[in-house]
Amino acid sequence: MAQISPSRRLRRTPFSDGVEAAGIKAYTVYNHMLLPTVFRSVVEDYHHLKQAVQVWDVACERQIEIRGPDAGRLMQMLTPRDLRSMLPGQCAYVPLVDETGGMLNDPVALKLAEDRWWISIADSDLLFWVKGIVYGFRLDVLVDEPDVHPLAVQGPKADELMGRVFGDRVKDIRFFRFGWFQFNDTWMVVARSGYSKQGGFEIYVDGWDNGMPLWDALFEAGRDLDVYAGCPNLIERIEGGLLSYGNDMTRENTPHECGLGRFCNTQTAIGCVGRDALLRVSLEGPVRQIRPIEIDADSLPGCDRIWRVTDPRGKPVGAVTSAAVSPDHGCGVAIGMVRMTHWDPGTQLLVETPDGSFDARVRDTFWN
Amino acid sequence: MAQISPSRRLRRTPFSDGVEAAGIKAYTVYNHMLLPTVFRSVVEDYHHLKQAVQVWDVACERQIEIRGPDAGRLMQMLTPRDLRSMLPGQCAYVPLVDETGGMLNDPVALKLAEDRWWISIADSDLLFWVKGIVYGFRLDVLVDEPDVHPLAVQGPKADELMGRVFGDRVKDIRFFRFGWFQFNDTWMVVARSGYSKQGGFEIYVDGWDNGMPLWDALFEAGRDLDVYAGCPNLIERIEGGLLSYGNDMTRENTPHECGLGRFCNTQTAIGCVGRDALLRVSLEGPVRQIRPIEIDADSLPGCDRIWRVTDPRGKPVGAVTSAAVSPDHGCGVAIGMVRMTHWDPGTQLLVETPDGSFDARVRDTFWN
Repeated sequence: MAQISPSRRLRRTPFSDGVEAAGIKAYTVYNHMLLPTVFRSVVEDYHHLKQAVQVWDVACERQIEIRGPDAGRLMQMLTPRDLRSMLPGQCAYVPLVDETGGMLNDPVALKLAEDRWWISIADSDLLFWVKGIVYGFRLDVLVDEPDVHPLAVQGPKADELMGRVFGDRVKDIRFFRFGWFQFNDTWMVVARSGYSKQGGFEIYVDGWDNGMPLWDALFEAGRDLDVYAGCPNLIERIEGGLLSYGNDMTRENTPHECGLGRFCNTQTAIGCVGRDALLRVSLEGPVRQIRPIEIDADSLPGCDRIWRVTDPRGKPVGAVTSAAVSPDHGCGVAIGMVRMTHWDPGTQLLVETPDGSFDARVRDTFWN
Repeated sequence: MAQISPSRRLRRTPFSDGVEAAGIKAYTVYNHMLLPTVFRSVVEDYHHLKQAVQVWDVACERQIEIRGPDAGRLMQMLTPRDLRSMLPGQCAYVPLVDETGGMLNDPVALKLAEDRWWISIADSDLLFWVKGIVYGFRLDVLVDEPDVHPLAVQGPKADELMGRVFGDRVKDIRFFRFGWFQFNDTWMVVARSGYSKQGGFEIYVDGWDNGMPLWDALFEAGRDLDVYAGCPNLIERIEGGLLSYGNDMTRENTPHECGLGRFCNTQTAIGCVGRDALLRVSLEGPVRQIRPIEIDADSLPGCDRIWRVTDPRGKPVGAVTSAAVSPDHGCGVAIGMVRMTHWDPGTQLLVETPDGSFDARVRDTFWN
């Protein structure tokens, strides 16, 4: 693996000092920010995430704040998910699409009030699209990046740790709901959410300068819980079927191809700019779709490019876009886009990697 | 320095195989793509660039293609530079701004025909802004990313090398002009441009599969010219005053603050969405502006965050955003944004880095 060159353009976060002190070994870049990927090793981090509790610097999930009378209208323009029933205090995973129905981002939206939303974005400059739409339609909203920086607490002991820092009331937050909690005299949004299947929270840290004090408080309070610095774990997120924008889906894909049809209400999402383009696919379904793919492999190279997927005779039928070897499942775990003719569970496939071809098959469900 | 984790999201380029074979040591990420930063060492690469010729994988300068009857109108909406006198065959460095006059990107635009342009972008998802504007104003254009991948040939021997591969006619291209040249039966745009002050060309390689054959042809033809793989060099580009979007300027800045007022014709750039916001600053000038800053230092840490700049008594007057030590000039060379009160050449400053404070002063011009 090559190194990553420092520059201001690859922005540090409020938690970078803590990340470095914890012995960060590797990063990726996400929304022009540093996102940790490895602390001890991907496998050690994986086991630890499933057993203990980790604090994750996910400040790269940058917030777009939308305020003003047209905030709700704008949000509905961005997504085919019908947001009319959404209440303040709720989070919603929202596929965001362009006028052709192509995915621009797959963020979590937080409804703070009828006229105030945050969009907690995946890796694309969604702000540019939102600003373009707002300007083009002369919408009555303010759009900006607030001084808010997500910090995730993930793992089976997350409730215990968070209770110690924010009080036991934090444990009452239901999945994809949020509440306001105080730290050092600052009120912050705390949501039960996060990019793992091990449970936990995301703290929307209000104010850059509150970052390291909160980081330190979590580590201080969690000493006996084996708290450690962590990050989204490649193996665990594939096992759990958590998609990654830019890896498993791009602007080429509709939400339906990404298996996100359940987050779309294309008939009723009136005003969504991609609605017309998605109407047919929402009725008839896509011709290719994301599937969990089990690979017969003890080791795999890093999936740094699309791996072609064929039927056993070599006919191309899809592509793998994320892959790793799972210690808990003893096989290669992968996310891929497969054509309808070959997406049924059990279908035998070949996955072509730079290290050779491997037998593989479509699974019914993800692993966790 | 930490490592960079592989993933499809950090996209490879048509030239990645060549980059790896040449012994790449470090990358940055630019437009979600891998951009090489170090081959032998930053200093070795620097000397070699000034003496010989290098082939650079700059495929991360992704193209946005704009085609259709409203192409010219759209281009003028994006920039305060008056484009009316621009002819097909010309390149133009164009500050692109939002409705507040904030910089969204600083690309090179290529006018291929009256109704066909390429925008060769710096590090932001400009496509999202362009698509939003096009949708909002219902412009009659197609906007897309073509299968075109820039490869730069830079250094004093660039003309010689390019002549051997594309024929001597390539040497007749004037600065910021382009022509069409054939390689392997494919016509490609070749421009006299590039992100160094050593002279050279950018080849807009048409077709992913033509990437490595052209890379190999350049290395084969340039053996006796000491051709080597290279990349934008931190030291050389600071010496030359080549700004970097995301480092030296962001959406916070107007073009005038970035010293790009000479590329703005705010009075006559009718239709530019940021025109009204920029009118006053274009008349009165900005209150802070980019300056070359010489630092009294033999070594400096990587400039991975804003370095505060103060007057000698500690009053904040600006920020350094790119810095390195120059072997040829025997001092620290830096790009910074300085307030009007302290931007005159010769003004003494202090630059605060993580390794301590250094004496510094404003220079009249960049070094090269």
